[in-house]
Amino acid sequence: MVETTAYKPLDMDTLAHRLTSVEAITQRIGADGSKWKVKEVGDGNLNLVFIVEGPLGSVIVKQALPYVRLVGDSWPLPLYRSFYEFHALTRQAARDPGLVPEIYHFDEGQALIAMEFLSPHVILRGKLIAGERVDDLASRLGRFCARTLFRGSDLSMKAAQRKADAALFLGNVEIIAITEGLVFCDPYFDAERNHHTEGLNALVGQMRDDVALKTEVQHLFVKFGANAETMLHGDLHTGSIMCTDTETKIIDPEFGMYGPMGFDVGMLIANFLMAYFSQPAHRSDQDLAGYQAWILDVTKDIWTSFVAEFTILWNSERDGMLYPKSMFEDQGHSSEPALQAVLSNIWFDALGFCGIEMHRRTLSLAHNADFESIEDPATRAPLEARNLMMGCDLILNRSAIGTVDALTMLAESFNRKAVL
Amino acid sequence: MVETTAYKPLDMDTLAHRLTSVEAITQRIGADGSKWKVKEVGDGNLNLVFIVEGPLGSVIVKQALPYVRLVGDSWPLPLYRSFYEFHALTRQAARDPGLVPEIYHFDEGQALIAMEFLSPHVILRGKLIAGERVDDLASRLGRFCARTLFRGSDLSMKAAQRKADAALFLGNVEIIAITEGLVFCDPYFDAERNHHTEGLNALVGQMRDDVALKTEVQHLFVKFGANAETMLHGDLHTGSIMCTDTETKIIDPEFGMYGPMGFDVGMLIANFLMAYFSQPAHRSDQDLAGYQAWILDVTKDIWTSFVAEFTILWNSERDGMLYPKSMFEDQGHSSEPALQAVLSNIWFDALGFCGIEMHRRTLSLAHNADFESIEDPATRAPLEARNLMMGCDLILNRSAIGTVDALTMLAESFNRKAVL
Repeated sequence: MVETTAYKPLDMDTLAHRLTSVEAITQRIGADGSKWKVKEVGDGNLNLVFIVEGPLGSVIVKQALPYVRLVGDSWPLPLYRSFYEFHALTRQAARDPGLVPEIYHFDEGQALIAMEFLSPHVILRGKLIAGERVDDLASRLGRFCARTLFRGSDLSMKAAQRKADAALFLGNVEIIAITEGLVFCDPYFDAERNHHTEGLNALVGQMRDDVALKTEVQHLFVKFGANAETMLHGDLHTGSIMCTDTETKIIDPEFGMYGPMGFDVGMLIANFLMAYFSQPAHRSDQDLAGYQAWILDVTKDIWTSFVAEFTILWNSERDGMLYPKSMFEDQGHSSEPALQAVLSNIWFDALGFCGIEMHRRTLSLAHNADFESIEDPATRAPLEARNLMMGCDLILNRSAIGTVDALTMLAESFNRKAVL
Repeated sequence: MVETTAYKPLDMDTLAHRLTSVEAITQRIGADGSKWKVKEVGDGNLNLVFIVEGPLGSVIVKQALPYVRLVGDSWPLPLYRSFYEFHALTRQAARDPGLVPEIYHFDEGQALIAMEFLSPHVILRGKLIAGERVDDLASRLGRFCARTLFRGSDLSMKAAQRKADAALFLGNVEIIAITEGLVFCDPYFDAERNHHTEGLNALVGQMRDDVALKTEVQHLFVKFGANAETMLHGDLHTGSIMCTDTETKIIDPEFGMYGPMGFDVGMLIANFLMAYFSQPAHRSDQDLAGYQAWILDVTKDIWTSFVAEFTILWNSERDGMLYPKSMFEDQGHSSEPALQAVLSNIWFDALGFCGIEMHRRTLSLAHNADFESIEDPATRAPLEARNLMMGCDLILNRSAIGTVDALTMLAESFNRKAVL
């Protein structure tokens, strides 16, 4: 039996001793802990992550720390996020089988999940910086969003079950508070944890003086905070996606919560747009246009695949309380106008959340490597400026961006802009 | 000590024997149960309600039944609704002191609440049918809505506290399922529990064939189902309001839940509009115009008072996570445009919910006395038809009804219509 007494962070030296008692692990990698090789690979902002390799195979051991790793123990963070990651992974596995790592073992007291070691998968963000392509990426992501969002909502679930589940996830308070603060507030005023590239001051000042922009951001915050439509991944950026050249997996749903359908989709698209805007610093002129075009194609296809799969589920699995067949199909009436309106709402919400994610990743605490890996601020600033300006446009004028083609054309026009 | 073993419905004979052990009751009405006079007065759809009068005073004892009283034991309903009524009353008492009956005693196992006997208060719906006026009615109702809705939301509460509370109320499943079914679905197809006045068939058929109407109703259902902005009363009609000629109290919040800000306001306005449309059957020509004008004045003033109080709270108690002062006032920026947008959203949502409530009270299971007490179907049908048609207009065209004056003018124009 695993020690379930008091929580204690694992380290390289004690891990084998502490986990050889877990049959779910020893079955997969071998029982003799002295033969295990342990590597700490946590490059994220929050947790310890170990690859444990034994004679029979490898396993990932992820353990929450009682503080934000990026900041240190001055920012405490409850261990229970591991509990929500476990529950989110379980639901995602049921709703889109094969798209998330398999869980072997969960220890709530130790805030520890042992799960499938994805190999040779690497973090998608790194591949996008390196200019690598992934087959079938967009359709897997679009379908994952459609399946998890549809199947976790009142379109599909029994109301009582959805409510019990929403109540469970409402306990995930402090980790969601990170999103509430870093995403929806900090970028829009001079918050303590902010930082941004020199050269952006004028633009950032202008944004922070834009009352209409801030007001719209807060309207979207209302939706994020209260609109518990479905179970979200909650942090679906390209650092939460692992790929080979042909396979895509989604990881790290510890920000799991019930929220608006458009949030995951919007955050996902934002991270592709940021990859797109950062490319001029990562590619030779020869490769640039082709690779940027590929990123926009992926962006387009994510939405197209989402719509296609959502439509299939709408017509085949709409067994929840909303838009009931008894009111539509059973009366010989089409629910197609309702579907189109639902998709349209998701789209416009997604565009708004997309703009906010583009802002917070350049202005708030947690930046992303697409831009951060550009060493020269003079190169970085104008690319980030395009990204910031498009974000403003998405937040303020999204009702005029009716299609994903209009979105990618807008990105192309900002990409041509001399902004600083 | 009260018997807390197994739940058992009270009756006139056993009530005194079972409740003389409850000090909170005997303190108020006297300890000698043999001197108590017990009267069963439950005229609602769900519960047992007793007035218990002793030598020192009187008390109301309300006990949930394990089924829907209106229908019988063929429709079981969990006793836990009493638990939610207790919690909702407690929160409302804190948020708008003096507007709800004081609780003396709560017994969760017996699903029983002993509370303040409101006397000489009577149900407002009866006063509106009788043509009686209540001083200060609109401002008390408007303020109650503003205070409970604002103070129960992320505009005011700490996020962690709002989430814990929202999670608690998500347990109130089956009673909310009544609203989900009877309000948002049944009116719009030929559901088993429906009934409506003869003479309305053609109009009702037309409504049930209107795909745009049904689609819009379902969009509003999405908001009701998932948009957990604040703790609602959940059933705020004129049968849940008790008045003297000068005093107003709100009762019966067992439909308490977290939902969209506009719901309580919309349901409340709907019930005044139904009172308005039913008046031609209840008043002499001489009194009709004056009393109808008073009802519309009350409707107007409810919204005006709501806006006034909400604005005060926005400026003085906006300490929750939404629209934070750190982003607005602290930066020398006005949050007034944000407030206006929030109020506008509440208004348009309220109009939609208002239209649905007007429909379900004439088409679904639970009708209201405003119309039901009109004995002659030939008199009732055309008045109900005006009500139904205005409901359609509110649901479909509410974005064109920007002010409460526009709303009351619309009511006046439907009131003049020869519809059948």
